[in-house]
Amino acid sequence: MPAKLIILGAGSALPTRSNFPTSQLLELRDKQYMIDCGEGTQIRMRQMGLKINRLGHIFISHLHGDHCFGLIGLISSFGMLNRTADLYIHGPFGITKLFESQIAFFCENLPYKVIFEEFDTRSNVMIFEDRSVTVFSIPLKHRVPCSGFLFNEKARDRHINREMINFYKVPVAQLNLIKAGADFITPDGELVPNERLTTAADKTVSYAYCSDTAYHEKVIPIIKGVDLLYHEATFAESEKVRAKSTMHSTATQAATIALKADVGKLLIGHFSARYADQQLLLDEAKSVYSNTLLAQDMCLYEF
Amino acid sequence: MPAKLIILGAGSALPTRSNFPTSQLLELRDKQYMIDCGEGTQIRMRQMGLKINRLGHIFISHLHGDHCFGLIGLISSFGMLNRTADLYIHGPFGITKLFESQIAFFCENLPYKVIFEEFDTRSNVMIFEDRSVTVFSIPLKHRVPCSGFLFNEKARDRHINREMINFYKVPVAQLNLIKAGADFITPDGELVPNERLTTAADKTVSYAYCSDTAYHEKVIPIIKGVDLLYHEATFAESEKVRAKSTMHSTATQAATIALKADVGKLLIGHFSARYADQQLLLDEAKSVYSNTLLAQDMCLYEF
Repeated sequence: MPAKLIILGAGSALPTRSNFPTSQLLELRDKQYMIDCGEGTQIRMRQMGLKINRLGHIFISHLHGDHCFGLIGLISSFGMLNRTADLYIHGPFGITKLFESQIAFFCENLPYKVIFEEFDTRSNVMIFEDRSVTVFSIPLKHRVPCSGFLFNEKARDRHINREMINFYKVPVAQLNLIKAGADFITPDGELVPNERLTTAADKTVSYAYCSDTAYHEKVIPIIKGVDLLYHEATFAESEKVRAKSTMHSTATQAATIALKADVGKLLIGHFSARYADQQLLLDEAKSVYSNTLLAQDMCLYEF
Repeated sequence: MPAKLIILGAGSALPTRSNFPTSQLLELRDKQYMIDCGEGTQIRMRQMGLKINRLGHIFISHLHGDHCFGLIGLISSFGMLNRTADLYIHGPFGITKLFESQIAFFCENLPYKVIFEEFDTRSNVMIFEDRSVTVFSIPLKHRVPCSGFLFNEKARDRHINREMINFYKVPVAQLNLIKAGADFITPDGELVPNERLTTAADKTVSYAYCSDTAYHEKVIPIIKGVDLLYHEATFAESEKVRAKSTMHSTATQAATIALKADVGKLLIGHFSARYADQQLLLDEAKSVYSNTLLAQDMCLYEF
C-alpha cells in the first residue's frame, strides 16, 4: 500500500474560497499523522468523510495561527466523540502553555489524554519514532521558531517465499525473524541464508514537509532524495521581495530546493490568498523542477 | 431596505458536511452585527465573498467552543487586512481573560483595538445601543452561563413631504428635527404640526436569538412579538430526554416558544450532527408553528 498525503488546507494566513489554512494528514502503513492544524481542519475532515481513528500524533511546525487555530476544536470534538486513546501533540517550545489553559477551560472531563511534546526547532533531531516511521525536525527560517518534518518509513518486512519455507520446514514461531532478515539454521545445523527464504521487502518511502520558510539551502542535505517534498510557495516570482521580507518562499525557490535536494516529487502549497488562480505558481515552479504538483484542498497524493 | 440575517453556521458542536458551528451576521440599516463565532466563521465569509467592513460588534452567547472558537482567527485576519476600526466583543464574564492572552500571543501589533465588554447573562438588560439598534441580553438556560440577544431597531425617520416643506419654506437646517417628528413654527409664529410635513416612518424590525437553551418559558415575555426568532432546535422529539439532560431544545419546543411569544417567523438551527436530513426537525416544528424556516449555512433571511 503506497503512502498517502491528504491535503486538508493548502492556503496560508487568509483563507480563500478554495483553500483552508494549513493542515495535512499523512497515512503510512496503518497509521495517520497530522501535520499542522489550521482553523477548519476538523471541518475539512468532515467534508471529506475522513475517519481519523488511527491518528495518534499531530506535528505543529510553528505557532502562527494559520497552522494551529484548529487544534482546540479538534481536541474538543475528539472528546465529544468519546476518544479514549492518548493524543500526542509535538510542537515548538511554548505550545503546552498556550493550549493547556484553553483545554482546561473548554474541554472539561476529556475522556482521553492530550500529551504535549515540545522540541527545539533549531536542531535537526529525531523527535518521534514508532514501529513504522521516524520523524526528524527540520530547522526552517521563519519569523518565529519553525520546524519542518522529515518522515522516514522504517524498513518493511521481506516477503516470505512460501515454497522454500515449507521445503526447509521453518517453524511458524521464527517467521517474524525471517521476515526481518534472519538466516535459518535447520535442526541438522545447515545454515539457510535469508535470501533463499525471502524476496526483497517493498521499498520504503520518505516525506519532507517544509513550511513556513524563506529560501533556506540548509534544508537540502536533510531532505536529500526524499520521495515527496511539500514545500511552501506562498508567492510568485514577482513578489520575491515580499517573500524575503515575510520569510516565505516563491514557487521558483521551492523548486530550486527540490532540484538541489534531488527529490522524487515536489508538492507546492501555502498559497497567498492573492492567487485566485494558482497556475502561475505551478508554471514558475515547473520551469525549474518539472516534477511539481499543486497542493489542492481535499486532494490525495499517493507516493 | 429590509433587515438581513446571514447564517454562517447552523450546526452545533460537531461540524458536518453542510453545517459549520454557530455564527450569524445581522445586517440592519448600514451596520453589521455578528452573533457567535464558531470555528470556520471567517472561512464561511470568504466562501460567500462577504464584505464585513461594517462589522463593529460581535455578540457571544456563551463560552462553549462551537460558539467562539472562530474568534481568534477572525481577529487575527482583521489584523492582516489592516483593519483600523475598534472591534467590540460582548460576551459573558470571563471572555476577556480567555481571549486576551491568545490575542497577545498570536496577534502582535494589531493595527486596531479589540475591546471586550462583559455582561451578566443572568439579567435581561440593555447591553448595547447605537444609532440604529438597542441590544438586550436574554437569560437562557444552559449548562454554562448563556444569553440570547434581542435586537430592537430604533425608530426610523419619518418621510419628508417635499411639497409641504417647500410650501412652508422649512429651512434645510431643521429637516433632521422634522424627520424625527418635530413640529415647525413659521417666522410668523404659526405652528405646523409634523403630520402635515411628513408621512409615517418605515416599520422597524426586531430580531431575537435564543441559543443554546433548554425549553425556557421565561424568554417569552422578553421576545414577545419579534419579527424573527432564531431558536435552537438541536434535537427531534424522539431525543427529548437527551435534549433535557444536555439543556438543549427540541424542534417542537422551539416552535412552542415561537407560538407562545407570537413571533412573526421562526428560524430553527443549531442542529445535532445526527440529522443528515433536517426535514424531520422542520416538520416537527411546523406541526406546532407553521411559519417556521430551517436555517441553512450561507443562506440569507430577509425580514
